[in-house]
Amino acid sequence: MAMPEAMEGREAGDLLERARTVVDPQLRASVASLPGSMRRVAMYHFGWEHADGTPAGGQSGKAIRPALVLAAATALGGRPEAAVRAAAAVELVHNFTLLHDDVIDEDATRRHRPTAWTVFGTPDAIIVGDALFALALRLIADDGHPASGAASARIAACVIELCAGQQADCAFEQRGPQDVSLDECIAMAMAKTGALLGCACALGALYAGAGDEEVAAMDAFGREAGLAFQLIDDLIGIWGDPGRTGKPAGADLAAHKKSLPVVAALNSGTPAAAELAELYGGPMGAEAVRRAADAVDRAGGRDWAQVHAADRMARAVDHLSRAVPDLTAAGELLALAEFVTRRTR
Amino acid sequence: MAMPEAMEGREAGDLLERARTVVDPQLRASVASLPGSMRRVAMYHFGWEHADGTPAGGQSGKAIRPALVLAAATALGGRPEAAVRAAAAVELVHNFTLLHDDVIDEDATRRHRPTAWTVFGTPDAIIVGDALFALALRLIADDGHPASGAASARIAACVIELCAGQQADCAFEQRGPQDVSLDECIAMAMAKTGALLGCACALGALYAGAGDEEVAAMDAFGREAGLAFQLIDDLIGIWGDPGRTGKPAGADLAAHKKSLPVVAALNSGTPAAAELAELYGGPMGAEAVRRAADAVDRAGGRDWAQVHAADRMARAVDHLSRAVPDLTAAGELLALAEFVTRRTR
Repeated sequence: MAMPEAMEGREAGDLLERARTVVDPQLRASVASLPGSMRRVAMYHFGWEHADGTPAGGQSGKAIRPALVLAAATALGGRPEAAVRAAAAVELVHNFTLLHDDVIDEDATRRHRPTAWTVFGTPDAIIVGDALFALALRLIADDGHPASGAASARIAACVIELCAGQQADCAFEQRGPQDVSLDECIAMAMAKTGALLGCACALGALYAGAGDEEVAAMDAFGREAGLAFQLIDDLIGIWGDPGRTGKPAGADLAAHKKSLPVVAALNSGTPAAAELAELYGGPMGAEAVRRAADAVDRAGGRDWAQVHAADRMARAVDHLSRAVPDLTAAGELLALAEFVTRRTR
Repeated sequence: MAMPEAMEGREAGDLLERARTVVDPQLRASVASLPGSMRRVAMYHFGWEHADGTPAGGQSGKAIRPALVLAAATALGGRPEAAVRAAAAVELVHNFTLLHDDVIDEDATRRHRPTAWTVFGTPDAIIVGDALFALALRLIADDGHPASGAASARIAACVIELCAGQQADCAFEQRGPQDVSLDECIAMAMAKTGALLGCACALGALYAGAGDEEVAAMDAFGREAGLAFQLIDDLIGIWGDPGRTGKPAGADLAAHKKSLPVVAALNSGTPAAAELAELYGGPMGAEAVRRAADAVDRAGGRDWAQVHAADRMARAVDHLSRAVPDLTAAGELLALAEFVTRRTR
C-alpha cells in the first residue's frame, strides 16, 4: 500500500463506478421483475424514481459491497463477470436490511431523501424488504453456477447475523448510557456491518472457484475491513458534513445512538465520559449535540476509533494475505478497503 | 374420494400428527440455532415458550404445509424422510410471513395468544421474521440434495408472490367496500395462500426427483387446494366458533376485512349487498358484525364460497391426476386437501 492516497482514492472511485456500471443493469432487471406496486417502492428506495413514479437520476448507493464481490473474484483469479449476479444479490440483501432497519429505527432520511416507510407506509417497507431478500435468493438460485448452493448458505447465515446485530443495536438503545460495554458494541458492529462485507468477499471467492480456506480468509478480510468501515461511519455520524452525509450534523448523537466512538468514550473512565453520560441521559438539542461531540473527543473516543480502524485494517490485510499470498493480485480489494476507511462521508 | 368423511378426517388428522412428529425436531433445531434473544421471540411465536421463557405445550400450528410436502413426495414415489428439511423450510417461510403480517395488519391475537409484536415489540417481530426466512433458506441450501437449487428458486419466487398478495390485501383495505372486484380478490388469495401451498407440493415433488411437468402439476394442485382452503378459512373468519378459532366471533367482519365471501356478497348486486356496503362504511360493533354476517349470507356470499371451494377442489384433483395418474398413490394428498376444506376451525 505504498500508493499515494489521491491515487488510491481515484482507483477506488473507478472500481465503484465500474461495479455500478456492471451490476446496476442486473439489479434493475431484478427489481423490474417485481409486481407493479412493490416495484414502485423498490425503485423509489434505490433512488431510481421519485415518490410519484417519475424517473430520478439518483445513485442507488456507493456500491461498496458489489465492488467487493467483483474485486474478491478478481483477486482469486476468477472472472468478475461470473460474479455479477452474486454482486447484485449482495446489494439486494443490503437494501432489504436498509428498508427494514429504517422502519425499526424510525429513521426518516436516507441518501438525502425521505425513507421509503415515510413515503409509502410501514407495511410497504416491510413487504418490499422481504421481496428484495427473495429476489437476492432467486438471483443466486437461478444462476446455475457451481458455487450457487454454497453462496445461498452463506447469504442465509449472513442474514441471521445481520438480524442478530440489528436486534442487539435496538437492545443497546434501551439500556442506560454506561450499560453497554465496548466489547458488546464491537460484536454488534461485526454482526451488523462486518458480516455482510465478509459475505461479499466470500461470495467473490466462491464464484472464483476458491477453496474453503481461501473463502474463509476472504470472509475474515471483509469482516475486519467492515469493522473499520463502521468505525469511520460512526465518526462521520458525529463529525460528518451534513451537506455530504445527507443527515443533520451529529445525527447519531441527537438520536442517542450508542455508536462505537460514543461507547468507547463512555467507557473511558474520564470526566468527559461522565459528562457525556449525563448529556445522553437527557434530550439532545443542538447545543447538547455540540457538547456531546466535544465530550466524545475529549474522552478519547475519536482517537480510539481512528486508531482502532487502522488496527482492523491491518488485521484485514493479514487475512487477505492468507487468501492471496501475492498481494499485488489483490490491488483492487486493498484500494476499496483503504477507500472506505478514508472517506469522509 | 369414496372414503367416508369421518375416516378421511381421521386419516388427515393422523397425517398432520405424523408431519408434526417428523418435522418438529428439525424445526426446533433450526430455531434453537438462532442467537439467544431472537430464539426467544421465535420460541414464543411457535407456541413452545411463554412470553417469560418458560416452556409451553402449545402446538406450532396445524402443520398443513409440511404435511403437504411429505405427502407430495410420497405420492410421487419419493421417500418422505428426504423431504423433511424442505417441509421444515416451508413451515419457517409460513411463520416468517405470519410474524410480518401480524405487524402489518396490527393483529393482536394468533393461535389463542397475543401476537409476537404485541409482546416483544414491532422491531423484534420484523427482525425475527427475517431470520426465520433466512433459516428456511439455510435448511435448503445446506441439505446437499440434488433438488436443493430448484427448491431455493421456488421458495424465492413463492415469497415474492406472498409479498405481492399481502400488499394487495393491504391495498384492498384502503379501498371502498364496493371497489374491489371478485377477480382481484381471488388473485390476491391465490398469491397470499395458494402460492405457498403450491410451493409445498412442488417441493415435495422436487425432493421425490420428479420432472418439470409433474412438479408444475403438483404446484397447480396445491394452489387450487390453497384457494379452497382460503375460502373455508374466510367462512370460518365470519361464522367460526370463537372457542375453536381463538378469535372473537366475526373477527374478519369487525376488521372490515374484504375476504372472499364478503367481496362476493358486495359484488352480488342484491339489496343485501348494499346493506353490507353501508355497514362496512361505518364502525363495526357487535350488532353491526351480526347484521353484516347475515347480509353476507343473504347476498349469497356464504353459498358462493362453499360452491367455489368445491369447484377449486375439483380443479385441484384434476391437476393432481396429471402428476399422479393413478390417484390411489395420492391418497394422503387427497385426504389433506379434503380435510382443509371441511374443517371448521
